[in-house]
Formats: sequence, structure tokens, C-alpha cells
Amino acid sequence: MREETIQLDHGSGGRAMHALVERVFARAFANDFLQELNDSAILPPASGRLAMTTDSYVVDPIVFPGGDIGSLAVHGTVNDLAVSGARPLYLTAGFVLEEGLPMAVLDRIVSSMAEAAREASVLIVAGDTKVVPRGKADKIFINTAGIGVVRDDVRLGGGNARPGDVVLINGTIGDHGMAVLCRREGIAMESEILSDSASLNHLIEAMLGAFPGIHVLRDPTRGGVATTLNEIACQSGVGIRLHEEALPVREDVAGVCELLGLDPLYVANEGKVLAVVPAESADVVLEAMRRSPRGRDACRIGEVVAEEPGRVFLRTRIGGHRLLDMLRGEQLPRIC
Amino acid sequence: MREETIQLDHGSGGRAMHALVERVFARAFANDFLQELNDSAILPPASGRLAMTTDSYVVDPIVFPGGDIGSLAVHGTVNDLAVSGARPLYLTAGFVLEEGLPMAVLDRIVSSMAEAAREASVLIVAGDTKVVPRGKADKIFINTAGIGVVRDDVRLGGGNARPGDVVLINGTIGDHGMAVLCRREGIAMESEILSDSASLNHLIEAMLGAFPGIHVLRDPTRGGVATTLNEIACQSGVGIRLHEEALPVREDVAGVCELLGLDPLYVANEGKVLAVVPAESADVVLEAMRRSPRGRDACRIGEVVAEEPGRVFLRTRIGGHRLLDMLRGEQLPRIC
Repeated sequence: MREETIQLDHGSGGRAMHALVERVFARAFANDFLQELNDSAILPPASGRLAMTTDSYVVDPIVFPGGDIGSLAVHGTVNDLAVSGARPLYLTAGFVLEEGLPMAVLDRIVSSMAEAAREASVLIVAGDTKVVPRGKADKIFINTAGIGVVRDDVRLGGGNARPGDVVLINGTIGDHGMAVLCRREGIAMESEILSDSASLNHLIEAMLGAFPGIHVLRDPTRGGVATTLNEIACQSGVGIRLHEEALPVREDVAGVCELLGLDPLYVANEGKVLAVVPAESADVVLEAMRRSPRGRDACRIGEVVAEEPGRVFLRTRIGGHRLLDMLRGEQLPRIC
Repeated sequence: MREETIQLDHGSGGRAMHALVERVFARAFANDFLQELNDSAILPPASGRLAMTTDSYVVDPIVFPGGDIGSLAVHGTVNDLAVSGARPLYLTAGFVLEEGLPMAVLDRIVSSMAEAAREASVLIVAGDTKVVPRGKADKIFINTAGIGVVRDDVRLGGGNARPGDVVLINGTIGDHGMAVLCRREGIAMESEILSDSASLNHLIEAMLGAFPGIHVLRDPTRGGVATTLNEIACQSGVGIRLHEEALPVREDVAGVCELLGLDPLYVANEGKVLAVVPAESADVVLEAMRRSPRGRDACRIGEVVAEEPGRVFLRTRIGGHRLLDMLRGEQLPRIC
């Protein structure tokens, strides 16, 4: 029976840890680089600028409609590389496990990471496992770091938005945050809200293939679309205007948000990308997005303006004008 | 007063998180790559094979004699790259913070990471901060991932040890584990035991400079010297024989180990490297080690033999012969 949960000695560096690494991680993530089980993975030379990123994942609950902490940990880091114009290549995975975590749960999460990595065409090449006593962590935390090679012809950056540019998104907003929250709080809906958690590198490759001169790409995760656009507005010294009637929000997401007093513009997404594109290239990029499975619902939601630099505004359905400040306070803790 | 501890909104993606990132992390780790604050750091092309590694750090207590979780998180990942024959270049840092962590503690740990990075000549180019509610983590966990460029002329690997090779180490064993344990358990010594936590990349560069053909380099962290040598013995299909009288152990470390029924051969080190070297080159490597600040006490502790492949033995002071198995069970939890 003891074998069926994580014990402290699974993190000790000794025999139990080696067995866990071989039985669970090496098997699921199998690739030539990881297989060596040396202190670092040794990877072939990469030509071009490198992109490097990291994220820790502490989502609660660890399994939610549309994904789990494992798939999320792959998607999030793949997306951070992709929005930088990089082709994601290699990930590392660092696990902090709470003593007593059922082995079946770990197996599920690791399989789901492996599946997400395959889908995004990345390899998990190095890993680490620590175990802390019961009550010193909450089930499982995962860190993924990633590297990729940046396309030569792109110069993306939060500071590149220019007045006249338009703002595109690849689909509905707020799905991930609401999926996690509904599961956590036991809010039952007629139709379950699914997280949008997904890797966007193939979509983004199609977008940059159609028009390499895209000014900004960003994934609106924590803080949501409004916070991410605030960052861009600040970095670029421009204003950004959104149109309320153009914002794609699922009816059930809008419903729960209203019920809870939340604004979908501040709710986390994990499969969405915001693109700031010169107006004359917007249609080309939109068409490329719509041809990709993760971009079918792509649409234009606003534009960049010269007025009010550093600020984001919403033009409401009735013609009003509402300031969308950066998120203040913790809207939803442990959403990713 | 509220400002003086970590709050949930420091992990929200909104205004408080941005302020924290700018005030604490961007300031301490300042470099051109991090400063961009985009989703990934964009790094110049690197020529040669890449090494990539990750480790999560959950040490308890977070501050111990000779270091803290911040310096340890840099040293550990730098060393994993260095023992692979790589020149460490860039690190990422992922923080999981417990609500209520005093800001002064975070500041201290981050400064200590920055100092360790400077000393090892690496840059911290990307980071992430998550905050979990009180009781859902223990103060602070840090993940560091790192990449480096592998020297062209080295082919290190745990499978390269050959009968006749000798085993070298750069100093005393068991210091880190005992320093952490004594602080955690409140064991008072006449002279405080200091952790050996340190970056070894400059030492290892000197060793490989003296003799690039070193067969194996490994840092004996969790599981200690005995477990690390067991890994090498297994991977290489050789036996390894250690000489008890040659093992460098500080008197106070030996004393506490005896008191607690621990064997220093299984206690974690964080500033030690084991080298497996062809006999004819051992003196050249030893001399290079002794000229380096982290290698002054370098010595030979054993040799590789053809007998009993996959096993490690200790030749005792009285001429006995003791099997040193891989660590079984959790000798010391949360030591790194």
C-alpha cells in the first residue's frame, strides 16, 4: 500500500527517487536527451537567437475541466516562447510534491504533460523532484522552463505597438479562469465551462508565416486581456481602445462572471494570444488565424491610438468610455 | 504595515505583482535581457552544444550557516551545468511564495541569489512569481533552470568511468547537510558547521583546462558521495573502491554524524565535485584543483575497478571491506 502514495524518500536522491524517475518521468517523457540521466541534458547546437522563459504552476484544483496542472505547465511555457517569436524546442520540469500525493494522480499529470509536449512538438529534456512533508505544500507544484530559437525575421516586443495598429485575439476570453473557479467553488452549470488551455505555437507560426512583421504578441494569462493590454500600452507609450460589442465572451462565462462580480477582461486565459498588427496587414493575419484549429474564432477587438498613452479604454455598447486599469488586488488566486 | 509581507495579490499578474517584480527582482538581477520584461528573454546565439538543467529548492530552514535558499538555488544549478562540461550562461528563477512571507526575508534571499549569480558569472534572465495562501507552501520554494554552452573538447558522462581511473574530490564531505540539519534541529556546536554551498564552475574550468579528457564529473548533492558514486558505477558498469582513511571529513561533521547515526558518505554536499580521471592524469588535475579557491583541499579518495560492476565499496581503516549501497529511505528531508 505504501507504494501507492508519494513518500519523503522519493525526494531523497537515493534508490526510491531513482525508481520513481525511471518508472514515471523517464517513461512518459522518453527522449534521447532525458534518457542519459546526467546532471544536465546535452542538446545539439541551436542556430539563431535563443528565447528562454520559466513559469511555476500552483493551480487549485490540480485537475479542472479541459486540463490539469500538467498540461497547463506545458502550454503556458510553450506559449511564452511562442509569443516571443520563438519556435519552442526544449522544456525542463521541476516538481515539488507533497508527501501522500497518490501515485495515480502523479501518473495522470505526468501523462498529460507528455501528451501536451508531443502535441506542441517540444521535448522535456531535464527534470527534478523534491518531496516535502504533508502540509508543507499543496499536492503538487510544477515549474517548467523552456528554450526556443527565435525566427530571424521577427522583432516582436511589448514596446512595438503604434497608433493605427489593430488588436486581434484568437477566440473567447475568460474561459480558463472561469473553468478553474467553477470547479474549485463547486459552481454547477448546465454546460460545463472548459479551460482553453492549449499550446499556441502552431497557430503563431501560421500567423508569423502570413505576416512576419506583427508588432506585438502576448498571451493574456494572469490579469487577463485588460492587464496584458495595459502592459503593452505602457511599454509602447500608446493608448489602446477596445470595443465592448466586439469582445468574444461565451454566454456561460459572462453569466458566471456577472454572478460573481468579475469582469471577463481580467480573467486568465491559457490558450489565447493578443496580436497587435499594422492595420493594412490585419486581414492577412486574421485569415491565417482562422485557418488554424486554435484560431477559428479569431476577431478584431480594438485598436491602438495616440491619445492617452499608457492607458486602455473600453468603448461600451451604449457609446460610453470606460478606463480599463491594470488589475488591482487578487481577483482569483491560484488560477495557474 | 501590509506592505511588509507578501500578499496574494503579489502573484495576481496585476499592479502589485508588477511593483514587486520591479522593486525586488528586476533591481537585484538587473541585466539587459531581464529588463525587457517580455514573456521570454531573447538571448544572443550560442555556438556549440547546449546544456540545460533544472532544480527546485525546498530547503528548511531557508537561511542556514554558510548560505540560504537563494544562494543555494544558484549554486546548485550552476554546478549541474558545470559538471556536464558546460560554461553556465543564463538562469531562470521561479518563485512560489507563501502569503505572509516577510518582504525583508524575500529581499535577503533575492540579494543573495544576485550575489551568487555575479560570482558565478551567470545572468538571471527570466523569472516568475506565484503566491499561495498561508499554509499551502512553506515560506518560499525556488526553481532555477539554466543553460550553458558545452566545451567542444569534453565528453563527460556518468558512463565513462574505466577500471584504473582514480576518484578525486575537492574537499570535505557532508558539510552542507550537517550545517542545515544542525540549524534545523537546534544542535549547538562549539564551532558552527558551515555549508559548503558554492559555485564550482570556475574550479571545473580550471580542471578541464588542465586535462579536458576527464571521464566523469558529478556533484554529490542529495544522497551524498556514496549515492553519486553508485550512479557512476551503474552507468559505467564498473566497481568503485573508496579508502576510509582518505575520506576528508571535518571533525565536527564526523562528530554530529556519529551522534545522529548518520554516515557522512550519504550526506548532501553543495560545493563538492567528484572527478573520475585516468590515473596518469590524476596529478595534473589535482594540482589544478588545489590552485583554485574551491579546490584547496582536493584529494584522491579511491579508484575504479573491474570487479563487482555496479557496486561501491569502502576499504576500512582496519582493512575491512564494506558495501556502500545507494541511499535507501529518506536520510535527511528538505536538505536542498
